[in-house]
Amino acid sequence: MNVENLRQTLEKFHSGEISLEDTVNLLKNLPYEDLGFAKIDHHRLMRQGFPEVVFCQGKTVDQVVKIVQNLAQCNNNILASRATPEMFQAVKEIVPDAQYIEIAKMIVVEREKKKSGTERFILVMTAGTSDMPVAEEAAVTAEVMGNSVRRVYDVGVAGIHRLLAQHEILQAANVIIVVAGMEGALASVVGGMVAKPVIAVPTSVGYGANFGGLSALLSMLNSCAAGVAVVNIDNGFGAGRLASIINQMR
Amino acid sequence: MNVENLRQTLEKFHSGEISLEDTVNLLKNLPYEDLGFAKIDHHRLMRQGFPEVVFCQGKTVDQVVKIVQNLAQCNNNILASRATPEMFQAVKEIVPDAQYIEIAKMIVVEREKKKSGTERFILVMTAGTSDMPVAEEAAVTAEVMGNSVRRVYDVGVAGIHRLLAQHEILQAANVIIVVAGMEGALASVVGGMVAKPVIAVPTSVGYGANFGGLSALLSMLNSCAAGVAVVNIDNGFGAGRLASIINQMR
Amino acid sequence: MNVENLRQTLEKFHSGEISLEDTVNLLKNLPYEDLGFAKIDHHRLMRQGFPEVVFCQGKTVDQVVKIVQNLAQCNNNILASRATPEMFQAVKEIVPDAQYIEIAKMIVVEREKKKSGTERFILVMTAGTSDMPVAEEAAVTAEVMGNSVRRVYDVGVAGIHRLLAQHEILQAANVIIVVAGMEGALASVVGGMVAKPVIAVPTSVGYGANFGGLSALLSMLNSCAAGVAVVNIDNGFGAGRLASIINQMR
Amino acid sequence: MNVENLRQTLEKFHSGEISLEDTVNLLKNLPYEDLGFAKIDHHRLMRQGFPEVVFCQGKTVDQVVKIVQNLAQCNNNILASRATPEMFQAVKEIVPDAQYIEIAKMIVVEREKKKSGTERFILVMTAGTSDMPVAEEAAVTAEVMGNSVRRVYDVGVAGIHRLLAQHEILQAANVIIVVAGMEGALASVVGGMVAKPVIAVPTSVGYGANFGGLSALLSMLNSCAAGVAVVNIDNGFGAGRLASIINQMR
Amino acid sequence: MNVENLRQTLEKFHSGEISLEDTVNLLKNLPYEDLGFAKIDHHRLMRQGFPEVVFCQGKTVDQVVKIVQNLAQCNNNILASRATPEMFQAVKEIVPDAQYIEIAKMIVVEREKKKSGTERFILVMTAGTSDMPVAEEAAVTAEVMGNSVRRVYDVGVAGIHRLLAQHEILQAANVIIVVAGMEGALASVVGGMVAKPVIAVPTSVGYGANFGGLSALLSMLNSCAAGVAVVNIDNGFGAGRLASIINQMR
Amino acid sequence: MNVENLRQTLEKFHSGEISLEDTVNLLKNLPYEDLGFAKIDHHRLMRQGFPEVVFCQGKTVDQVVKIVQNLAQCNNNILASRATPEMFQAVKEIVPDAQYIEIAKMIVVEREKKKSGTERFILVMTAGTSDMPVAEEAAVTAEVMGNSVRRVYDVGVAGIHRLLAQHEILQAANVIIVVAGMEGALASVVGGMVAKPVIAVPTSVGYGANFGGLSALLSMLNSCAAGVAVVNIDNGFGAGRLASIINQMR
Amino acid sequence: MNVENLRQTLEKFHSGEISLEDTVNLLKNLPYEDLGFAKIDHHRLMRQGFPEVVFCQGKTVDQVVKIVQNLAQCNNNILASRATPEMFQAVKEIVPDAQYIEIAKMIVVEREKKKSGTERFILVMTAGTSDMPVAEEAAVTAEVMGNSVRRVYDVGVAGIHRLLAQHEILQAANVIIVVAGMEGALASVVGGMVAKPVIAVPTSVGYGANFGGLSALLSMLNSCAAGVAVVNIDNGFGAGRLASIINQMR
Amino acid sequence: MNVENLRQTLEKFHSGEISLEDTVNLLKNLPYEDLGFAKIDHHRLMRQGFPEVVFCQGKTVDQVVKIVQNLAQCNNNILASRATPEMFQAVKEIVPDAQYIEIAKMIVVEREKKKSGTERFILVMTAGTSDMPVAEEAAVTAEVMGNSVRRVYDVGVAGIHRLLAQHEILQAANVIIVVAGMEGALASVVGGMVAKPVIAVPTSVGYGANFGGLSALLSMLNSCAAGVAVVNIDNGFGAGRLASIINQMR
Repeated sequence: MNVENLRQTLEKFHSGEISLEDTVNLLKNLPYEDLGFAKIDHHRLMRQGFPEVVFCQGKTVDQVVKIVQNLAQCNNNILASRATPEMFQAVKEIVPDAQYIEIAKMIVVEREKKKSGTERFILVMTAGTSDMPVAEEAAVTAEVMGNSVRRVYDVGVAGIHRLLAQHEILQAANVIIVVAGMEGALASVVGGMVAKPVIAVPTSVGYGANFGGLSALLSMLNSCAAGVAVVNIDNGFGAGRLASIINQMR
Repeated sequence: MNVENLRQTLEKFHSGEISLEDTVNLLKNLPYEDLGFAKIDHHRLMRQGFPEVVFCQGKTVDQVVKIVQNLAQCNNNILASRATPEMFQAVKEIVPDAQYIEIAKMIVVEREKKKSGTERFILVMTAGTSDMPVAEEAAVTAEVMGNSVRRVYDVGVAGIHRLLAQHEILQAANVIIVVAGMEGALASVVGGMVAKPVIAVPTSVGYGANFGGLSALLSMLNSCAAGVAVVNIDNGFGAGRLASIINQMR
Repeated sequence: MNVENLRQTLEKFHSGEISLEDTVNLLKNLPYEDLGFAKIDHHRLMRQGFPEVVFCQGKTVDQVVKIVQNLAQCNNNILASRATPEMFQAVKEIVPDAQYIEIAKMIVVEREKKKSGTERFILVMTAGTSDMPVAEEAAVTAEVMGNSVRRVYDVGVAGIHRLLAQHEILQAANVIIVVAGMEGALASVVGGMVAKPVIAVPTSVGYGANFGGLSALLSMLNSCAAGVAVVNIDNGFGAGRLASIINQMR
Repeated sequence: MNVENLRQTLEKFHSGEISLEDTVNLLKNLPYEDLGFAKIDHHRLMRQGFPEVVFCQGKTVDQVVKIVQNLAQCNNNILASRATPEMFQAVKEIVPDAQYIEIAKMIVVEREKKKSGTERFILVMTAGTSDMPVAEEAAVTAEVMGNSVRRVYDVGVAGIHRLLAQHEILQAANVIIVVAGMEGALASVVGGMVAKPVIAVPTSVGYGANFGGLSALLSMLNSCAAGVAVVNIDNGFGAGRLASIINQMR
Repeated sequence: MNVENLRQTLEKFHSGEISLEDTVNLLKNLPYEDLGFAKIDHHRLMRQGFPEVVFCQGKTVDQVVKIVQNLAQCNNNILASRATPEMFQAVKEIVPDAQYIEIAKMIVVEREKKKSGTERFILVMTAGTSDMPVAEEAAVTAEVMGNSVRRVYDVGVAGIHRLLAQHEILQAANVIIVVAGMEGALASVVGGMVAKPVIAVPTSVGYGANFGGLSALLSMLNSCAAGVAVVNIDNGFGAGRLASIINQMR
Repeated sequence: MNVENLRQTLEKFHSGEISLEDTVNLLKNLPYEDLGFAKIDHHRLMRQGFPEVVFCQGKTVDQVVKIVQNLAQCNNNILASRATPEMFQAVKEIVPDAQYIEIAKMIVVEREKKKSGTERFILVMTAGTSDMPVAEEAAVTAEVMGNSVRRVYDVGVAGIHRLLAQHEILQAANVIIVVAGMEGALASVVGGMVAKPVIAVPTSVGYGANFGGLSALLSMLNSCAAGVAVVNIDNGFGAGRLASIINQMR
Repeated sequence: MNVENLRQTLEKFHSGEISLEDTVNLLKNLPYEDLGFAKIDHHRLMRQGFPEVVFCQGKTVDQVVKIVQNLAQCNNNILASRATPEMFQAVKEIVPDAQYIEIAKMIVVEREKKKSGTERFILVMTAGTSDMPVAEEAAVTAEVMGNSVRRVYDVGVAGIHRLLAQHEILQAANVIIVVAGMEGALASVVGGMVAKPVIAVPTSVGYGANFGGLSALLSMLNSCAAGVAVVNIDNGFGAGRLASIINQMR
Repeated sequence: MNVENLRQTLEKFHSGEISLEDTVNLLKNLPYEDLGFAKIDHHRLMRQGFPEVVFCQGKTVDQVVKIVQNLAQCNNNILASRATPEMFQAVKEIVPDAQYIEIAKMIVVEREKKKSGTERFILVMTAGTSDMPVAEEAAVTAEVMGNSVRRVYDVGVAGIHRLLAQHEILQAANVIIVVAGMEGALASVVGGMVAKPVIAVPTSVGYGANFGGLSALLSMLNSCAAGVAVVNIDNGFGAGRLASIINQMR
């Protein structure tokens, strides 16, 4: 199922080998497989360079297993986010080479290690220790998608010298992911220190008037530093995916 | 207890057979039965074509049983939404032909199957697999109320080809229910593809800045496609009920 | 009208010179004067060391004039905040030595210059140029209340070197007022650099998701730096007043 | 004022030519110029590849003029956003080669046209006509910073065929900026069609439950398409700046 | 430009009369016309039974004129909502048969009066007099789209007898639009009285804790009456459009 | 049009003097008069002891005039709230004995002065001078409805002695209306000092994080003093009306 | 501990029997007892006619027991709200005549039954069955404070005939408490039917866009019926207390 | 690791003893220790007078243990907030002299008791008993940091005499911390009674429309008493830290 198949189908139609009806049906059915409760987007590898990633939250264990099983038949690398240990156990019985990254709550199947040069790396930073689960979701995502990743954790702005000491790695990084809860100020300070794309991930870490991550979210959206863009609260996956796309541009 | 009863009572009053006092009392007591903690609206079948539907959330098991029991004495078809398995077990002991649709959390008594032609059908769509419980609440509601229902699940806009492939069924449907969480964009895209009533159901599926369904709700309310109306977050029942009313108009 | 008067009244009552009724009436009427639409709190100088400050917003020009006039009879120094130029013109006709600080929208009468040593000074900082009106409200308030004030404006965190260059003045200050809109990150960074009380003033400067100052407010409340407390959005006066109280503690 | 100056200063210090005190003072004063109400960040060109951009909103005409004048002495290209026509008139008297892009409310001085190849271009899209002012702010920013920009306006999802017809330009673009108000669904659909970085700009276009752009903002943050990041409501400048950074990476 | 054109183009392509390239170009360009700032969706009449409706808010007078002019070349009936009198004056010079419905702020061109039987009518109700502008936007929309409309205004629930007196017209209506601000309770009461589709339009009428229509919006979304769906605050047009679609179903 | 008429109509129906049809029509039309844009609730005097009060905000001058004129034909006393001076001028030409209470923005017609004993009085208190317009709306409403009203203004809790000095009048009052903006703390303190019904009116007086009166509203709703109930922000009329109902109970 | 004690103390001071110091100490200590973690307000019976009511939520079992024990020494009647069964068990061991009203989560000690005439009664209404716990908290509070209470439950506006059938009891009631979740419309309809004080209690019953009771709260605050005041969400106690105060006025 | 070390390092660099590279490395590494998941800020004692305080929420037991262990090697006094009993047990095994203050959820190591005079004390007040955990967090923080603390609990404004009775201790205090949930009015009343810095801590105590502490937060931010500043909801630590800084100023 690739671009070549698609091209052949279209040529067959034009030469009259297959009818309009058949062509439409082939094209319609080609790019995804319908499990009833889910439509696996097999087209995504072709369209976006990586297979569909399974968002496990809100799905039953049974649904997750069936989707991963289906993806595993056509893809070498699979990623499932927000997976419970229970989901992983069930998946592992069907896909024995699946691994579980506990802190990131991710199931990973990585049969074909994408090679990545270390000179173009993504830097993942956190303001605090409690932001690590989200940061690791971002880091694992980027790594599985074939990027070199470096981590600098717990450099929140209340001890600015800890951040300033990272000056060199900041200048060396190609894309920077900043993960921070509470007031989320780290994104602005980093954004002002570099001329790199900064992807800010607000986290729900905090209490009281952080309102589940709202404080960090608003803070990052209002960053006085240009060059900062924001993803959803706790959305490490989205940040990792976007960083990967940018990092692999030439 | 029907329109004929009502007419007879009024005629008796006018002819002097019964006094004003008695008439008022009959009329006042007629349309509902007072269980103390609940007033069963027996008038609803007459007024709206389907008996009162029991919203179980916030009621005790005992209250649910008593209400269903009371309804079962006068009605062939009964629907109870947001019911727990425990509630169902207790109801089943009293009303043995009750069924439980687990995914939709509904108790159904369907003694008199309403016939529904398949040419006028309601289409229930979801953006993702996790939206299914809400979608099934809508679908079951519409089916029990006598409509033909078809389901198309997991056609969110991030893989627009999955949606475009549904073009035919979209054109064939009479009313469309769109169930989506996260950014809820499916409602707008569908709304722009058809000239049918689209009932949008935002769901609480998502995390972070979806704020319990607020993101999908606001998105659907601000839909740039005309012809879209919205019900409460996760309100599958309301969507199914409204779709049924529209579908049965002539 | 001072503590001495109060003591004398109480002693007269105990010695029987004046009755209970008369005492109560004296005490009740003493500490404020009733203009009908306002009760001037003449007690405040005695209780809090500075006369009542007039908050002009929402008052008519006529009300402001009458209140200032009344205060001017008993006090040497008067402060009125959020005053329009029109209010000032009207006040000036009655109280000729009144002055208007346009950027801070304040009317000031300062007949008895409080002396303040420069070794204990309050530092007022802003993140941007647009925060100046709020900062000046704070600075003028603190100055009129007898404090030495120094200003450092436009040192937002997007150019962190501008802030780091203020290291000396930060260490020398006794109390620090940080005025910032947008993401309000300056408060956290400053809070982490010093062991001084930091009073954070969120401003409504910004647009979009700053929601009238909400972003800076939440950011400052969630500051990861301890030692930071927050006043209302744009409340320069409150910050200046509190800084003055702290600065004058011994 | 450039990296060479900085190096020389440091070397002089080490060789003893200048004292520690003098060095600190030079370094501290070097990177910005203090106008009192503003600290011009002359360091930014060196640090981020483009001089400080003037955010005019909330500044007086006089302040804008002085800042632009100061920047114009050291820089060839200047950008001022959210400028009123009145501000432009005042600037033009001092900096005669300044231009005003009315729809984007930007003042531009462009003495040294940065050359940009057209093969790597930024695509700016809008959902509706009313989103154009924000889109133009993004486009002008990117152009002045040396990027080739192409525009596709009014392709909101309610007429999905208008968007699908842009398939080729979407595939050809290097970075995509999606500007949309109301329900902001365009970002998700575009995000699912490409494997490019998508920068989503929610706008305040709409009414009622869009709450000043909140609906589009939440929608974009909750996008079911990975690879989408969001900037502040109506923040065309931020999107243009980030797109430029990404587009110029190699 | 209609379905017939489309069919012919496709047949020509299959027979080889026109190339793939040409076909794609024709299809791509066919359904909309690109004015640069706007893409007129000429396909909409074909797809949804009524031409694109111009939402004037946020557009310049010049843009509105050009769009209406363009639409007027291919369509008999045109509708423009949220138009200012100034916009109307400019349109009228180009399209002399345009009319302005002041209370609804709509520009109407109605060259081909759609006939509508009066037996199937849409009922538009308001809770108060101040809700009339929104109600008229709904009513005019429905009328221009070929529906019979009846109006019942100022029947808010604080005088429930005024509403009960409308019993007959409520039973006779085919679709009901309920327009209400403040607490928006009218939708629930009406929804409980009928077995018709009820489209609820919250309005921004009110003050204080109605927060721009939020109170009525939440109230209507939480309606305890099934069969009620909601559109955006003040969105009379959307309600009228949806009511028209439902009313014209058979 | 009074209770006697109603009784006669019903008796005529029962005796057969008038038909059922006629009776229904009489009863339906009796209690309100339909002006098209408004349905005057003439029934209200009978039902609630005071004629319908005109809420002018959102109505045109012409509508206000017609409603007042209509009410003036059947009622001795009329009240119109949130009226502009322009509305008053237009009303005065038709109803020459109308008066305008500027601070309360009310039009009053008071032909039959209701007598009210002074021993049972309503006390209206404000926290600040700026709360007076709302307080006067409450006071005028209560007075026109036949109550004795006393006013105590500017006794906010920041000078608690000003409030404590009101101890006697607080104990003497029958019902207390507390009008306060900002943090609205006055309601709690007063609520704890008395065993009288306290009606709290939050006002929009304040700025920043008062969010249009939200702070006072939430504060009053969360009052730790029992016996306090709250009306809408700035709703002086509602408070006056409720206080009048309570004050006139026996 | 009553008013007589207070008077005697003051007279002794004036006659010189006790010193100023002693008097102040007596008065200061008299009205409350300090348990360290709580200050029992023994003054409240004197000041407000009923002893302090214990709000158990957030207190430890041990704290509740100690407070009730302390109150029981001086008072005949005690009320504790939001008490868990565990708290009740612990209290019962110390205060054996304590009772637990499970549905209302209240502990009641009622040694001296206050007599209440039935002719002046408080009516407690609910929109649904799920609102009963809050309604019972209100009803029990009012009963223990010596009022006659009548209950009418499950008369929500979706079946308006159920409410209209309560016409007589509505007219007979002295004060009405309306308890409703979801859209809270019952308060407005009832408020329009009577000229009695209506105390509206929004409940958190509902889901989705009811946001924990916000929808009913806003709805009730914006009620188009005058004479309605609102207490906090789920605050049955507050409503019962206020109704009691009003009901016992003469 | 102290200021002396720092000075020596800098002098060695200038004298040529160590190279620029070495100096930078020493300075960079000096002030914090990198555990990978956390960067212990050993610089803080030097910079702010007290070692870094461990915020345990969101950290694993293992992380807390390692951080405390690391801190314990260089510091005499350690504070960890929001610690669970489980965390304490694990810490105690490594640091046997650690203590657990259960009500405040704090782990304390206090090897070097800081002496504090009692004449300068911090007063911690609460409105209710349920606010005690937050108040104790503040009190313990201030005590461990070397301050004398006095507590006055349960003096909410609904019984204002309980507060007025604290007049002497209020006047004697040097800094006042006011801890209150619900409507948070205590801060305003206290703020008006003293000329001391008042640090207000809103708590999440309450229900319904307190929205997790929002009501108290907004109330305190809008305090009509100047001299009040606010920290995050439930942030006892922050209040204690700031009070300590102020109390130790000379």
